[in-house]
Amino acid sequence: MRERLLAAEKVRALEWRDGALHLLDQRLLPARESWLTCTDIDSVAEAIRGMAVRGAPAIGISAAYGLLLALRQRLAEGGDWEVALEEDFQQLAESRPTAANLFWALNRMRERLLRLRDGDDVLAIMEAEAVAIHQSDREANLTMAQHGVDLIRRHQGNEQVVLTHGNAGALATGGFGTALGVIRAAYLEGMIERVFASETRPWLQGSRLTAWELAGEQVPVVVSADSAAAHLMKTKGLTWVIVGADCITANGDVASKIGTYQLAVLAMHHGVRFMVVAPSSTIDLNLESGEDIELEERAQSELLDLAGTRVAAQVEAFNPVFDITPADLIDVIVTEKGVVERPDKAKLAQLMCRKRLH
Amino acid sequence: MRERLLAAEKVRALEWRDGALHLLDQRLLPARESWLTCTDIDSVAEAIRGMAVRGAPAIGISAAYGLLLALRQRLAEGGDWEVALEEDFQQLAESRPTAANLFWALNRMRERLLRLRDGDDVLAIMEAEAVAIHQSDREANLTMAQHGVDLIRRHQGNEQVVLTHGNAGALATGGFGTALGVIRAAYLEGMIERVFASETRPWLQGSRLTAWELAGEQVPVVVSADSAAAHLMKTKGLTWVIVGADCITANGDVASKIGTYQLAVLAMHHGVRFMVVAPSSTIDLNLESGEDIELEERAQSELLDLAGTRVAAQVEAFNPVFDITPADLIDVIVTEKGVVERPDKAKLAQLMCRKRLH
Repeated sequence: MRERLLAAEKVRALEWRDGALHLLDQRLLPARESWLTCTDIDSVAEAIRGMAVRGAPAIGISAAYGLLLALRQRLAEGGDWEVALEEDFQQLAESRPTAANLFWALNRMRERLLRLRDGDDVLAIMEAEAVAIHQSDREANLTMAQHGVDLIRRHQGNEQVVLTHGNAGALATGGFGTALGVIRAAYLEGMIERVFASETRPWLQGSRLTAWELAGEQVPVVVSADSAAAHLMKTKGLTWVIVGADCITANGDVASKIGTYQLAVLAMHHGVRFMVVAPSSTIDLNLESGEDIELEERAQSELLDLAGTRVAAQVEAFNPVFDITPADLIDVIVTEKGVVERPDKAKLAQLMCRKRLH
Repeated sequence: MRERLLAAEKVRALEWRDGALHLLDQRLLPARESWLTCTDIDSVAEAIRGMAVRGAPAIGISAAYGLLLALRQRLAEGGDWEVALEEDFQQLAESRPTAANLFWALNRMRERLLRLRDGDDVLAIMEAEAVAIHQSDREANLTMAQHGVDLIRRHQGNEQVVLTHGNAGALATGGFGTALGVIRAAYLEGMIERVFASETRPWLQGSRLTAWELAGEQVPVVVSADSAAAHLMKTKGLTWVIVGADCITANGDVASKIGTYQLAVLAMHHGVRFMVVAPSSTIDLNLESGEDIELEERAQSELLDLAGTRVAAQVEAFNPVFDITPADLIDVIVTEKGVVERPDKAKLAQLMCRKRLH
């Protein structure tokens, strides 16, 4: 499985090369494949804020590299770089509010800083740490893909029709994707008949990004309106909804792309299984439940304008970009540390005690 | 109520004037208020097919006028106009497949034709019939608005937060609207705190049409993504979902704008009441259940393009524009003949036995 996934790899959201972070600009896909080169923290923070890079794991990895770029600058400037670096941590932490992986990656960078000893090559060690964060996300994707395929196989023998929402693919991670990693692997195993990708308004992660990723690997994918989900479940033989996550709390509540919550309600109503796929870096045990998660709202213009032109009436819009799916609507959370069926506080605590694999 | 609604009237979708059908071109709203003048059946059929006019009641009224324009032409041509007119009935009936009102209006025109006597002024009588169809739809809107307000008042005393989907307003009818007629009237009665209008992809009936209608009358309206519905129900104190219908079958199943079905599932999950507002011309007792309704699918480009430019990846799209809400998810159907709570076959049969009011 691992080898077949690696052989099929076509899309990368980000690369660390020649001392710079290179980002495939996701605002322009699929029309144009254009790469941004970030050589300082400001350009990384702006890329995260403006969604040139998006998806919780990819945001986390970008933030780690962003901090590395800041560190390089601070060291060059001389003086008390450790104090100065606090501003940089702050700047990156404020770039997006909901993705747990962002704070996780920054914390991991901070912890490595705290373990430095006199005489260490600070920049080399911290670069290795950022690269390790990136690499471990790739490995986590591969492990989760295998777990997800095993789960589907345990429940069904025939080819599946699945629905995914938003983009939890290569573009959202350092590797093959979380939800799309499972879907890709299941396709390679001959277990996928068709994937419905919901359009995912307003940013069109589904029709622009997920459809592009899957079509590029010949996975049969069909775009449908977000409002067609229940109709699909009733008429198209769906058996699984498979999505990613931006934050998972101690009790198993999941923040994910706006619309995920209603897919979970609809899946339960129709007897469709609901799988969340996310690396353990998405889980924040310090947050008790979904109520503790800050849900980002973005500009009203994302809903009211199309292609830069106002199409809606002169009214207000409410544009939350994430929502909370309560744990009791989730059949299974797949992480690289293992699989949690019918998630609850005890099971998640137990999962997080396990050693990190990668 | 009637007088206040009439005084507040600002928007009309269609007018019959100087022997022509004038249609406000809904493809261009709200950016431009441009009127089409239809003087023959072809232009009416094309306006229905291309959605210059849409909304089941407005389609029905337009078809009645379209048949009148065809009749004028057939009479001018001489010969056996009654035989020739069959083609015209056929052409209009094929312009959209789902709206029951279209077939109802054509049937009513046909029945009037069958009652003609020797010496009758055919054109004058048939014009009066088309105008009566139009006028009765306006009256039905007013009656339904009153019924709907009474219902809301019976259940709640305080100001309501409601969600509507698609456009079931003045633009969809010959008068004030079905769902929006109820919402307008409730607002005039001081019973509405806020209306959420879901965007309604792909055609944006919510953000383009419903938001425009309501904002024009100072009704507080906020546009939200179709995928935000469950999040709204959980966090914004919604008490009612109020929608129109394109076809209602003998057992109370309702065909309406794609996404209506999932709103009904979500409403039930959240304890939000679900009201369908439609004139009795939307009810077809010859159709046993929703399975007998032909659900229209429209061009994939509606989902894959924005403003004429391809934004999605090179994939297929599934674009059904209606879905079926089963009767058991509906709290109440409001018609001009009366109100049916918890609809079923017996109650709908009883309702349709009542004399038509208008």
